[in-house]
Amino acid sequence: MKFNYPTGVTANNSSASNAKVNAATVYGKRGMSLEEEINTSNTYYLSNAIAVIHKKPTPIQIVKVDYPKRSAATIREAYFSKASTTDYNGVYKGKYIDFDAKETTNTTSFPLSNFHEHQINHMKQCQNAGGICFTIVKFVKLDKIFLLKAEDLFHFWDNKETGGRKSIPLSTFEENGYLINYHINPLIPYLDAVDQIMKKL
Amino acid sequence: MKFNYPTGVTANNSSASNAKVNAATVYGKRGMSLEEEINTSNTYYLSNAIAVIHKKPTPIQIVKVDYPKRSAATIREAYFSKASTTDYNGVYKGKYIDFDAKETTNTTSFPLSNFHEHQINHMKQCQNAGGICFTIVKFVKLDKIFLLKAEDLFHFWDNKETGGRKSIPLSTFEENGYLINYHINPLIPYLDAVDQIMKKL
Repeated sequence: MKFNYPTGVTANNSSASNAKVNAATVYGKRGMSLEEEINTSNTYYLSNAIAVIHKKPTPIQIVKVDYPKRSAATIREAYFSKASTTDYNGVYKGKYIDFDAKETTNTTSFPLSNFHEHQINHMKQCQNAGGICFTIVKFVKLDKIFLLKAEDLFHFWDNKETGGRKSIPLSTFEENGYLINYHINPLIPYLDAVDQIMKKL
Repeated sequence: MKFNYPTGVTANNSSASNAKVNAATVYGKRGMSLEEEINTSNTYYLSNAIAVIHKKPTPIQIVKVDYPKRSAATIREAYFSKASTTDYNGVYKGKYIDFDAKETTNTTSFPLSNFHEHQINHMKQCQNAGGICFTIVKFVKLDKIFLLKAEDLFHFWDNKETGGRKSIPLSTFEENGYLINYHINPLIPYLDAVDQIMKKL
């Protein structure tokens, strides 16, 4: 059995006490991980009725639960299980949006080992069903965030399977991807790139 | 703090060993809960490239994790947290689909207490963003499953807030909803009702 340890061990983004756990993965000028930056942006999009996009809870395999009489049920044994989908999905302008967010400390390319087969398969399925799928990649040391359409990712993934290179060069992000510059509100205006993708549909 | 105990305590639908836990909630002729019937139908829709709709993992608030040297990380203390969204979402014909599934043993009406404020709010947000939102309700003793559009649900919910009735009568499901008859594949062809909703958009 293969396990998937989520960054920051967050199983529920909406709870305040996770901030403590998340503090372990802190990058970038603003002291925020990409996940936090995206969550903050999604909160802005939600509260301004622009889009409803949530991070999915981390899947947990529960083995043992205590049900004390006068207090909340307590999970006493559980394991992280492999996510069968990507981390984020939701709705924007009626369209289904699906993506994953990844950070790399590499400076010249993005290693495909950051993805699992099942995540790629999920995105292929969503794309087939008419969804808009992509990945958001943060080159931490360059402090640059790119949105790359799933089809560009599939291209490299499928080539890798047949002996091709095991990473996506930075130049591909620069040429085919969408650079996302930091704003105030939202912090990461990634739906601007989605607008451009939609125009070409 | 309010806790939300999920039916069957499933945190990861894809894992086989949950079947045991789920067995606690078994209704209907076929010995399946509505959740299992929907999951089975979603598996059919997925494997036939019709739609990609998944049940979200149950949100868990993790407090304590052990990291043993030679084996998988073990969650030693965690709590069920309140879901901020509905249980199911995904993509069908490019459209964002969002719904919740509820069972009732009532025979003449569906109590609105089955819904939480945050679930209704989430559906309102999704509907505003152009998504297709609804609820699937199973009247267990009648062995009847209906799909009801979110706007019909909102109508009763909002009336309740201003002193209206606290349940949706069966007749509303019969007149405004879509009766879903059992099939072989998929077991519950609820996307047929979604097709009818889409035609009217």
